[in-house]
Amino acid sequence: MTRIVVDAMGSDNYPGPDVEGAVMAAREYGVEIMFVGDESKIQPVLDSVGGANLPVRVVHAPEILTMEDKGVALALKARRPNAKNSMAIGIDLVKNGEADAFVTMGNTGACLATSYFRLGTIPGVDLPTLAVAFPSATGSFLLVDLGANPDCKAENLLQFAIMGNIYSQKVRGIDNPRVALISNGEEEGKGNELVKAAVPLMKASDLNYIGCVESKEVYGGNVDVIVMDGFSGNVFLKTSEAVAKLLTDKIRDTIKGGGLLTKIGGLLIRPAMGSVRKLLDPSEYGAAPLLGVNGLAFIGHGRSDARAVQVAVRVAKEAVEAKVLDAMKSAIEESLKK
Amino acid sequence: MTRIVVDAMGSDNYPGPDVEGAVMAAREYGVEIMFVGDESKIQPVLDSVGGANLPVRVVHAPEILTMEDKGVALALKARRPNAKNSMAIGIDLVKNGEADAFVTMGNTGACLATSYFRLGTIPGVDLPTLAVAFPSATGSFLLVDLGANPDCKAENLLQFAIMGNIYSQKVRGIDNPRVALISNGEEEGKGNELVKAAVPLMKASDLNYIGCVESKEVYGGNVDVIVMDGFSGNVFLKTSEAVAKLLTDKIRDTIKGGGLLTKIGGLLIRPAMGSVRKLLDPSEYGAAPLLGVNGLAFIGHGRSDARAVQVAVRVAKEAVEAKVLDAMKSAIEESLKK
Repeated sequence: MTRIVVDAMGSDNYPGPDVEGAVMAAREYGVEIMFVGDESKIQPVLDSVGGANLPVRVVHAPEILTMEDKGVALALKARRPNAKNSMAIGIDLVKNGEADAFVTMGNTGACLATSYFRLGTIPGVDLPTLAVAFPSATGSFLLVDLGANPDCKAENLLQFAIMGNIYSQKVRGIDNPRVALISNGEEEGKGNELVKAAVPLMKASDLNYIGCVESKEVYGGNVDVIVMDGFSGNVFLKTSEAVAKLLTDKIRDTIKGGGLLTKIGGLLIRPAMGSVRKLLDPSEYGAAPLLGVNGLAFIGHGRSDARAVQVAVRVAKEAVEAKVLDAMKSAIEESLKK
Repeated sequence: MTRIVVDAMGSDNYPGPDVEGAVMAAREYGVEIMFVGDESKIQPVLDSVGGANLPVRVVHAPEILTMEDKGVALALKARRPNAKNSMAIGIDLVKNGEADAFVTMGNTGACLATSYFRLGTIPGVDLPTLAVAFPSATGSFLLVDLGANPDCKAENLLQFAIMGNIYSQKVRGIDNPRVALISNGEEEGKGNELVKAAVPLMKASDLNYIGCVESKEVYGGNVDVIVMDGFSGNVFLKTSEAVAKLLTDKIRDTIKGGGLLTKIGGLLIRPAMGSVRKLLDPSEYGAAPLLGVNGLAFIGHGRSDARAVQVAVRVAKEAVEAKVLDAMKSAIEESLKK
């Protein structure tokens, strides 16, 4: 049975959504759950959601990393051998082979640092990276790096691409993922120095590299894995969210401020708008895999509800069962032989 | 009377929209128009739109720079003293003091190169930059750089900020523009190396610098001038367009694919949706100013219609009359004394 460690102290409303969602996952997908966190807070939720007859147990962790943990102080907490926070104890369970993957809805930087210091990286990978699935016109695509690494070298982009490619094959079920670099134009010669240096590496790789593209190709559904440095990736992510919010707000306000017929029209299309909004709901996509560390870790949104936590655990289970970590190690090893 | 040179060979459907729009501007705003381009193609349009009694004349240019012009070949065409293409002849009119500003709907890179080589830069400015106005929740903001400079130094970002600030004051009528850098997070210590190096320069400047922000602040209406390198700026621009298209397409398709009531609702909100779409229509924003060259040049969208060309000419007129070039030179000079 696949064993998933869930940080019970992760989400903004912890431990409610975290515990309830993971219990739902245990019930539905037949996974074993280990909760890390404050036992006195976890147990009441566990009792209330009826986890008694499921393969669920609690590993007590008296401390917690919050959104306030950053910089050097965070690095120290992430490294300390006897750290007592839920992330460190949870990730150690993965490291020691007692669990197969770690899932948290908590501080992204904290999980990144804790995973990096406690698990180390896959041989040949310089920087761990965060990947996330986005909706497109025809399905979805994987964006990597989402913001973990604001400064990258060309070799980092190649490693991101190799890992994103494996993840897309093994977990997202895409046969021969189309991998692209984002650039400021699709023509040969466009790009910043980083992209120009990465193009020959991508071309020389075994990837199904389709070239440099702009966002319209990505959202249009013509790319499966889109690779960029973490600064641009974060601009891409945050701009996408901001424009979606601007537009849906404007539509709502325009309908609200319109005449009677417009208001009636707004009521009639409400279910349709709901499905569009769902398309943009991060909780539909579960959690972002942390790629490149020597173990499996998944980071979900702080705003996640139980349903989102359940999806995150499902994604982690799929990654474990697809042996994505081994496949990534092999792919990176292969690339180093070139 | 303010004299604007209009590239008649600029838009995708040249010279129709270019000539008609500029004639509309001459009629409405009392500007003098000089068309550059193929006289035999311009004159028939001019006759058909009744430009006879207006201060409009044609300066013949037998050649044209197209979307195919790029790289070294473009640089050569842009520099050649006796260049016969419409951009070179038009920009020379500005350089020689025969006109006050140049407006084109043509190839952005071609206009950039031609302006750079023929006008030179403002003393103290290393790289000319493209700025553009975007809609926000409460009005609009100016983004600089839009993609002219995929690789920047911190000093370039400061220069972009100073020029965007002056442009916002003088042309966009904003009293004390709030200037921000985009970053991957708002906390101190976030940012790539470029942003981290730019922060102290921004803080030491006379700008109303409000810090590092994410896209949600920008689209939320809390920023007047948002500064980034041209690579990120282009990702911001293209991602904004792509998400807006994805969303409006999805809404349209969902309504089309819905039941009878949804379809009726869709019909009822159609006028409201039209006003939302208008918000995102680049033609509503006229043209992007090229900042940092020693003269005024404006570049509009290739898809511009006559109305968009008219707006572009109006913006150019406003920039001339606000003496934005002189103000920019003074501001850059002041900043160099620091």
